[in-house]
Amino acid sequence: MDIRTYLDERRRLVEDRLADLMLEPIGAFAQHIEAMRYSLFAGGKRIRPVLCLAGAEAADSGEQTWRRALPVACALECIHTYSLIHDDLPAMDDDDLRRGKPTNHTVFGEAAAILAGDGLLTFAFDLLSGKASAALPDPTRIRIIQTIARAAGPLGMVGGQSLDMIHQGQRIEYEELRLLHRSKTGALITASVACGAMVAGAGEEQEAALRAYGDHIGLAFQIVDDLLDVEATTADLGKSAGSDSKSGKVTYPSLFGVATSRTMAREAVHEAVAALDRFDRQADPLRALAHYIVDRKK
Amino acid sequence: MDIRTYLDERRRLVEDRLADLMLEPIGAFAQHIEAMRYSLFAGGKRIRPVLCLAGAEAADSGEQTWRRALPVACALECIHTYSLIHDDLPAMDDDDLRRGKPTNHTVFGEAAAILAGDGLLTFAFDLLSGKASAALPDPTRIRIIQTIARAAGPLGMVGGQSLDMIHQGQRIEYEELRLLHRSKTGALITASVACGAMVAGAGEEQEAALRAYGDHIGLAFQIVDDLLDVEATTADLGKSAGSDSKSGKVTYPSLFGVATSRTMAREAVHEAVAALDRFDRQADPLRALAHYIVDRKK
Repeated sequence: MDIRTYLDERRRLVEDRLADLMLEPIGAFAQHIEAMRYSLFAGGKRIRPVLCLAGAEAADSGEQTWRRALPVACALECIHTYSLIHDDLPAMDDDDLRRGKPTNHTVFGEAAAILAGDGLLTFAFDLLSGKASAALPDPTRIRIIQTIARAAGPLGMVGGQSLDMIHQGQRIEYEELRLLHRSKTGALITASVACGAMVAGAGEEQEAALRAYGDHIGLAFQIVDDLLDVEATTADLGKSAGSDSKSGKVTYPSLFGVATSRTMAREAVHEAVAALDRFDRQADPLRALAHYIVDRKK
Repeated sequence: MDIRTYLDERRRLVEDRLADLMLEPIGAFAQHIEAMRYSLFAGGKRIRPVLCLAGAEAADSGEQTWRRALPVACALECIHTYSLIHDDLPAMDDDDLRRGKPTNHTVFGEAAAILAGDGLLTFAFDLLSGKASAALPDPTRIRIIQTIARAAGPLGMVGGQSLDMIHQGQRIEYEELRLLHRSKTGALITASVACGAMVAGAGEEQEAALRAYGDHIGLAFQIVDDLLDVEATTADLGKSAGSDSKSGKVTYPSLFGVATSRTMAREAVHEAVAALDRFDRQADPLRALAHYIVDRKK
């Protein structure tokens, strides 16, 4: 299969639905909504929403139920975007550039950026409980909300960002680094695939396999992120390159060197694909996405 | 009925359940959880959770279903606490004192405070979709999640805080001020009562009446908040008194004077109680709470 075409098509679906679902920048709250939209429509890779759709497709019973995962995919992108806005704040990583554009707070100010993040996080749960996702059965919605709240919460993404802040500039052990990544980025990636599976009505075993897939590509994704920070340019990335070594962050290349890190990423992809061995060709997009994740240049 | 005893009892129930449900400050994420707990257990008035319980009691069919509103009440308090942490940040109101204690960011630093807020907001949706609230039927949980996400979101509480930031130090019209209050504080107060009604399985008419009650006491609450900022001391309030006039905020007393503002608050309470006229004695706690809200000293 052609992963580029697949990605383009799926991204387009996500962009279109996001444009449909997102609040318009009109009325009394226009400025706040504008700040949310600025980062949400800044042209991200949309990896989490696409993983959600591909997860649904893998477990799909053949009636294109995967399309019902679109509002869930949009909610995941809202949550991911909120996390980028808050991570970039002066009090956190203090970054100026994201997705090739000035960061939210450099454009709208710090207060507005904090609130844009808060707004996107809250709006994600609005999408998951409102009309947007009304086609999903209530028990499925509850499970999805629970999965996302857990993955994004104090023992997941927020907790991971908190560990990252605490350890900034410190040397930490590999085990701690794994936990940091697993919570900061891995949890939401796994949740994205798992929520897709839930939409498609996957059985327990299927869902467990898709979660395993998510865990492995989450790891691969993080290693490649670290490698790109060393190897790519700021223009390629659309965010500041070399910022990890500047801030003294412990990364895969800093711990294991570039060559070993690349091998580890490939191994993680191999494991991810192996987790899908009971799936038929419907899981081909997930398989291709796994390879795409290590081969990407930004 | 004795409102003090009622409040003490209900607050105790909320405190106990919060203590049960909140994450323990152990393990890898202990510091993050500690920062969340610091503000959550700083001894707030717990008005929103008590309104939720009293709303459930008013519409209760007599089997103490109102007790099933406790996890919802706890989620509301998590959301309210997150909003206080973020409002107090240096980039927002830059306050040092809250609930009689140093604000979250003065104790844990700005990054940790932002994340503590994010964590509490996300955790609220965890409570509403997880085991804590599993006794509620799924359609009820979805409606409650939707109600809270809307009330706390870009067209509600976060949007209101954004308006507050935008208009800081500016003279604004009364109509704009009403919208600001309705979104910043009113929406979550009304949602608190409405969610209680949903737990108790209130009919449409009952729920609408309880929402009207919520709207009126939301207004009364705000006017009294403004009055207390003028009349009370910092020691009484547990947060900085006089901060509104210092920051040039438009308030009820600044627009209408103290005496007229007090009359407006009493009228709003009168309307709130009038909205309950089809309810029997089960709504007595709500009636008493309305009076308590204007008579409170902090």
